[in-house]
Amino acid sequence: MGPSDAKPKLSDTLPIVSAKRRVTIALIAEEAGVSIPTVSKVINGRPEVAPATRHRVERLLQEHGYQRRVSQDDTPAGLVDLVFAEIESPWAMEIVRGAESAAHEAGASVVISVLHTHAGPGRDWLERLAARRTDGVVIVASRLSTGIQAQLSARSLPFAVVDPEGEPAPGVVSVGATNWNGGLAATRHLLELGHRRIGMISGPSDMLCSQARIDGYRAALETAGEPLAPELVRRGTFLVDSGHDEGHALLSLPDPPTAIFAGSDLMAFGVFEAARQRGLRVPEDLSVVGFDDLPLAKSAWPPLTTVRQPLQEMAALATRTVLAMGRGEVPETKRVELATELIVRESTARYK
Amino acid sequence: MGPSDAKPKLSDTLPIVSAKRRVTIALIAEEAGVSIPTVSKVINGRPEVAPATRHRVERLLQEHGYQRRVSQDDTPAGLVDLVFAEIESPWAMEIVRGAESAAHEAGASVVISVLHTHAGPGRDWLERLAARRTDGVVIVASRLSTGIQAQLSARSLPFAVVDPEGEPAPGVVSVGATNWNGGLAATRHLLELGHRRIGMISGPSDMLCSQARIDGYRAALETAGEPLAPELVRRGTFLVDSGHDEGHALLSLPDPPTAIFAGSDLMAFGVFEAARQRGLRVPEDLSVVGFDDLPLAKSAWPPLTTVRQPLQEMAALATRTVLAMGRGEVPETKRVELATELIVRESTARYK
Repeated sequence: MGPSDAKPKLSDTLPIVSAKRRVTIALIAEEAGVSIPTVSKVINGRPEVAPATRHRVERLLQEHGYQRRVSQDDTPAGLVDLVFAEIESPWAMEIVRGAESAAHEAGASVVISVLHTHAGPGRDWLERLAARRTDGVVIVASRLSTGIQAQLSARSLPFAVVDPEGEPAPGVVSVGATNWNGGLAATRHLLELGHRRIGMISGPSDMLCSQARIDGYRAALETAGEPLAPELVRRGTFLVDSGHDEGHALLSLPDPPTAIFAGSDLMAFGVFEAARQRGLRVPEDLSVVGFDDLPLAKSAWPPLTTVRQPLQEMAALATRTVLAMGRGEVPETKRVELATELIVRESTARYK
Repeated sequence: MGPSDAKPKLSDTLPIVSAKRRVTIALIAEEAGVSIPTVSKVINGRPEVAPATRHRVERLLQEHGYQRRVSQDDTPAGLVDLVFAEIESPWAMEIVRGAESAAHEAGASVVISVLHTHAGPGRDWLERLAARRTDGVVIVASRLSTGIQAQLSARSLPFAVVDPEGEPAPGVVSVGATNWNGGLAATRHLLELGHRRIGMISGPSDMLCSQARIDGYRAALETAGEPLAPELVRRGTFLVDSGHDEGHALLSLPDPPTAIFAGSDLMAFGVFEAARQRGLRVPEDLSVVGFDDLPLAKSAWPPLTTVRQPLQEMAALATRTVLAMGRGEVPETKRVELATELIVRESTARYK
């Protein structure tokens, strides 16, 4: 067995550990050609630094793997920051529940920040964060710019991403679900029931999880030798209204689908509505599969067949991981995907 | 116009204001017969004080209206604590959304604490809170013991209660909804549709809002000259399962109701399930009214007739109030009830 087969040592996965004692603010200041207080300001997220200077200092802090010296009395803040783009959906509540439960176990509380934008956390969020202490940051389903990553690293703030919007940068800890497998399982289930015209309503195209679900749908069709009909794939927003609108769009096609796979439970509820408005019965006239398995999926009418993603577990894992990172532990893997599972209820039936 | 008709002056509603400069820790220590550091420990929520001593000091702090001296550099913490007993229901998400939105406007974030008990915040929660800064506390649908009230006051932490579980103590700021009027409106709507056997599933009996909703139901029946049938009033938990169970209990009566008023939307969804399991159609065979108007009420099948309570506005108002109190402002009224509104959708129909 050659050295390349050996399990990586901690120092392989986190070069920061060995660099800890060497890199000082003075060294960074010298290399950047700025004063020591300027480097401190960058590290502490203060606004009064020119953007070019800030950028140069951040790059050096990152290159050198600078870590803030942990003082003797540096007790935990007892807070984990949970950052959402929006919290409109009951989906967000499942994330909050999982994060809160993991934080609670560790004697901490969860701070909710809602960015009210899909552009990801920005300077204003960072400056607000700089005004107080936190033990770590969990970013949910949002973009995460390299600039913000660099600033979080420069401040030695552990962070993780739940359900990353795009491909996370190498080295960023992220927790997701097996979205591709979920899309595959949902579509296979419909194929096994004899459906051939299967519509799909996906989430926003810039979200990685949406793309994976469509690809799973496509893979199931291809494996079954079914052609992919482009008119059967629609884009939604994950919310009820878009399921309703895209459901109508699919059902008004000249050759409408006999089954629809919606990329979220809320969109599946919207498809239920659209079907009823057209006098179609679910599942007799139209089979519907959702994605998420929100608590309400089983009380919907009909009870919703859906792909369960373990939202609470995902959020809890990310929260426990940032808390562990804050204690100096190094996660063995940077990327974890928890399993999805098809839950068959009453919204799907054999094609007649 | 006599003096009693005059609008109360600030000093009338908050005697604390005038006492601010007089009361010192030294004075409290002297009266309590303890050392100054002991008083400090009580104020800062440290655990190492004997219960009897703590109690004596807290009482004196409250009697004297002690307020912690605000130092020059006492900038806001940028955090408002939102305390829940549980966050199982999408109801909680509406509260989070309202609080977060109000905090966001003020440049603050919301800290979620879930007590995982219905006994209200206890010493352990207070001790955790003592380890960090906060600008104020909003307590949601929980009990609030006089001991905890005294400690929050002793620490000069502004606090408010949303949807108080019991009658709040005099002087405690609280925000609720007009639950009695909501219960009245829901029941009148059913009476106007010709229903006479109207079942009611209320929430837990120790919650003030449940009691008010039943009383509204009773008042509507009495006003209409209808006798109250005790077997038609059941107790639930506000969650889906109890609506299902109590719905079955009501529908299996020898003379079952033709309409059910559920004290929450989730319980109404549970009644939908129970009705379907018995082969009853809503609204043709059974009319159902909910309470809350959660976002999912309008996408339910059938769309749910319900009493809207402005949950987001309630939470936002409480949050803005504690932030204002933290800036030294005095709320004009201690108790605010925001209006509920009957939203008629498709789950109710004329009695045939």
